[in-house]
Amino acid sequence: MRRWNGWGEARRETPLPEAAWAFLAQRLGEGDRGGDASLASACAGVPAARLPARPGWDRDAESRLRHAHGQSFADWAALRHGAVGPFPDAVARPRDHAETRAVLAAAERAGAVVIPYGGGTSVVGHLQVVDDGRPVISLDMSRQVRLLDIDPHDRLARIAAGAPGPLVESQLRAHGFVLGHYPQSFEYSTLGGWIVTRSAGQQSRRYGRIEHCLHGARLACPGGELEVGGRVASSAGPDLRQLVLGSEGRLGVLTEACVHVTPTPEHERFHAVFFGDWAAGLAAARAISQAGVAVSMLRVSNADETDTQLRIAGHESAIAWLRRYLGWRRLGDRPVMMLFGVTGSRREAGRARADALALARAAGGVAVGTALGRAWAAGRFAGAYLRNGLWEAGYCVDTMETAVPWSRATATVSAMQQAAHEALHAHGERALAFSHLSHVYAAGCSLYMTVIWRRGPDHATDIERWRRLKRDVSRTIVARGGTISHQHGVGRDHAPYLAAETGASGRRLMRAALAELDPEGMMNPHKLWEDDHVG
Amino acid sequence: MRRWNGWGEARRETPLPEAAWAFLAQRLGEGDRGGDASLASACAGVPAARLPARPGWDRDAESRLRHAHGQSFADWAALRHGAVGPFPDAVARPRDHAETRAVLAAAERAGAVVIPYGGGTSVVGHLQVVDDGRPVISLDMSRQVRLLDIDPHDRLARIAAGAPGPLVESQLRAHGFVLGHYPQSFEYSTLGGWIVTRSAGQQSRRYGRIEHCLHGARLACPGGELEVGGRVASSAGPDLRQLVLGSEGRLGVLTEACVHVTPTPEHERFHAVFFGDWAAGLAAARAISQAGVAVSMLRVSNADETDTQLRIAGHESAIAWLRRYLGWRRLGDRPVMMLFGVTGSRREAGRARADALALARAAGGVAVGTALGRAWAAGRFAGAYLRNGLWEAGYCVDTMETAVPWSRATATVSAMQQAAHEALHAHGERALAFSHLSHVYAAGCSLYMTVIWRRGPDHATDIERWRRLKRDVSRTIVARGGTISHQHGVGRDHAPYLAAETGASGRRLMRAALAELDPEGMMNPHKLWEDDHVG
Repeated sequence: MRRWNGWGEARRETPLPEAAWAFLAQRLGEGDRGGDASLASACAGVPAARLPARPGWDRDAESRLRHAHGQSFADWAALRHGAVGPFPDAVARPRDHAETRAVLAAAERAGAVVIPYGGGTSVVGHLQVVDDGRPVISLDMSRQVRLLDIDPHDRLARIAAGAPGPLVESQLRAHGFVLGHYPQSFEYSTLGGWIVTRSAGQQSRRYGRIEHCLHGARLACPGGELEVGGRVASSAGPDLRQLVLGSEGRLGVLTEACVHVTPTPEHERFHAVFFGDWAAGLAAARAISQAGVAVSMLRVSNADETDTQLRIAGHESAIAWLRRYLGWRRLGDRPVMMLFGVTGSRREAGRARADALALARAAGGVAVGTALGRAWAAGRFAGAYLRNGLWEAGYCVDTMETAVPWSRATATVSAMQQAAHEALHAHGERALAFSHLSHVYAAGCSLYMTVIWRRGPDHATDIERWRRLKRDVSRTIVARGGTISHQHGVGRDHAPYLAAETGASGRRLMRAALAELDPEGMMNPHKLWEDDHVG
Repeated sequence: MRRWNGWGEARRETPLPEAAWAFLAQRLGEGDRGGDASLASACAGVPAARLPARPGWDRDAESRLRHAHGQSFADWAALRHGAVGPFPDAVARPRDHAETRAVLAAAERAGAVVIPYGGGTSVVGHLQVVDDGRPVISLDMSRQVRLLDIDPHDRLARIAAGAPGPLVESQLRAHGFVLGHYPQSFEYSTLGGWIVTRSAGQQSRRYGRIEHCLHGARLACPGGELEVGGRVASSAGPDLRQLVLGSEGRLGVLTEACVHVTPTPEHERFHAVFFGDWAAGLAAARAISQAGVAVSMLRVSNADETDTQLRIAGHESAIAWLRRYLGWRRLGDRPVMMLFGVTGSRREAGRARADALALARAAGGVAVGTALGRAWAAGRFAGAYLRNGLWEAGYCVDTMETAVPWSRATATVSAMQQAAHEALHAHGERALAFSHLSHVYAAGCSLYMTVIWRRGPDHATDIERWRRLKRDVSRTIVARGGTISHQHGVGRDHAPYLAAETGASGRRLMRAALAELDPEGMMNPHKLWEDDHVG
């Protein structure tokens, strides 16, 4: 059973290690550890549904509560403090495309809004219910999870869009293939969710961002059926798949996707290399990326993140030995760590390893083998669980990300961290902020910052601090020409910053296209852009 | 000076070799070699302009004649037979983005239509003037050709969109970079034209289709300014670049593009490998592509195309020796030829060569070195000139192309050739049709068919034969699920088949988006889709 008010399985406890707690208390002060609202009290706050009973639709309080939120900080704080709402009035769980269309038709007749619900993992408010007077249906995709068809010759697989990461992979692996899309939310997030939010997995360097995996898609829309793509490579007009990618539910409900798949890799390893400072690690990352070295992933943590990772890696004696070794190699006491993956046939992996190590060493890197990479791989989806342990220890955590050209990476990440510190300082609080670059491209990379700060005594305090933090960091990103999101989408939280990226004309184009098949504006309104008035 | 009624420079004569002529006469019968209409007579047929004189706008007959067409077969037959028209009423040549906007504003005031004109190389009717009662301005981009900015660190270059291939490359090579986009029309076609028609160059396997090169673009639209992209990698909503790509002038005039560039390659070779039959060549192509071997291009000619290529390669004694060698290696007398390119650093090229040759040999291939590849590279842009020589010898030629999954490649290319034979047979004519696959992808490849048939006595006969041919082959492509165009776009000639690819809902989306900034429908109307009524 999933935890109703946090990340992951309820039975999986993730307490903060004693050492980490002491470290945070010293850096940030002790946070408030007040108890959370109970499930029973949260359910008691769910009002009567505004939609009549209907076979197959759930209107019970717990279902509606569980579908009222994603995993953004705002969602999280509301859940813990018992301030969730508004709620959907019903949860529909159609079993296929035809039933999905039937739900849309029923919603239209009822004058209701539809919010498609995949894995519930959005961190930017895609699932938030906005009360504009209309009843709301959460359209849960959890019954549409099957591998529908696979063509090993052309390496294409058609999969129902509600399939979560593990089920996507296990069904493909039975045929000897993988999709290779591994975001941190992999356990719960779904194929359809990845597509409509333009997700990037940790190994996107090998397998592509989700837009590179998408061959074709099928959607149920209020105004009819929409099929896009399905051609090998076409010059026939605009690529309409690229309107579905990033459509965030506003165009319709994605029910099936045909994706490119790859044979299960023969070999995979993750190597760690240390550098004396951020500039050296960044230079190595750029060199490896621009030389086209076929690493499957690459990230460079800044000194603070490297330090944090070494602290939580455990194995104190091994880490102490590592620090002594790096000192002996004259890397100084603030080293930065690069991790890169090599994945594929043994020959491919061997070449990528050799090329990446040669370029890393040329930039002053010291390779330390694959033990730290194994630790990273073992915990690659566990980061989200830390949020539970931090909260319970009295701390809030959020992450913010962008992508920028190589030439702006250092200044942007510094400015983001500074904005985080200043935003919390304005509330009399300190912040712990550390970052890495990852998802390397020829022109640049993504930047990913983690911020930890103290919990306050109540919901209003926590939200007020976070709003300031989110606003100031977002403005910093926009001011430096970064995208407002490299991998999480827009939802509610980033909607105010989208216009800076698309311009007024681009916004008009986007709205004209996405609204074409939704004349009533019933599909996930108030997401991507703020609707002026409805209902 | 460019030839006014055919391909290329007027002074470059490309007579058909005697042997080829004899071969065609034997296969197809002798074609009509009646003389062409003269430039003077064609100019005499240009009516008075419907727009008043304006500084910087040309209204003379020859300018208007030269901007009244592209290079589709219909354009070609009209030029040769002296049946060109309708004509634009004026040719404007704005020098920059601001002047381009001014032309659009003037056009709007005059109630005129605007047809953006790049290199004039469209083979599907993008430049055709359709008389819907409104005056027409051809907006010639030939004064917007400069490299505006280059960032070697991030490998991005901003280039004015009217730059033709050679000028794109020479300006970048001065900085040590290439774009690497080499369509057969390279000599004349422009960066902006490539983008708005989703072009694929011969080495798209290395450098990407033009959509993979495009970082950002700037357009002048009737409804304002549009800038798209310019972010390293974004998950913030739909990718609006992908609406510009393939917009074919209907969205506005693309004036500047920022593209990814690559260092000038250290090494480049093109290798030839022969196989006993098409199935073996196809299997090798798929193996190389799906193994991710970094060849820069790959094509496999079928037996008829291989035979034709060997005939026109000259060097009779060398070819006779080659045929004996292939016979000795038991490849039979109908071999098929694969060409693949290796491009990049010596190390990259060496690995790609070794991997590709190993997979080719495993499929039964016999490698014969790089001499045939050198011949291909030397003549890679010359194919279009053959059209002049063929016409003057009494023959018509056209090419038709698509892309399909690997599993459908053989059946589709056979059906295309059969459709071509039958279409001309219906007119009592024979056809010479041969094909190759190229532009390999994980899921499939493009198919490119060349068809040669006899010229008839007059324009009506030539057009009638061609219409039947184009219609029947297009229907065959669509019926087999191929795209109506892998690399040439839609224009007028493919517009009837686009709906089969996009569906009705997709068409609505596309129109809603592209028309949003063009409320009067003044931008290149009747292209991509047929406008119902205007003016």
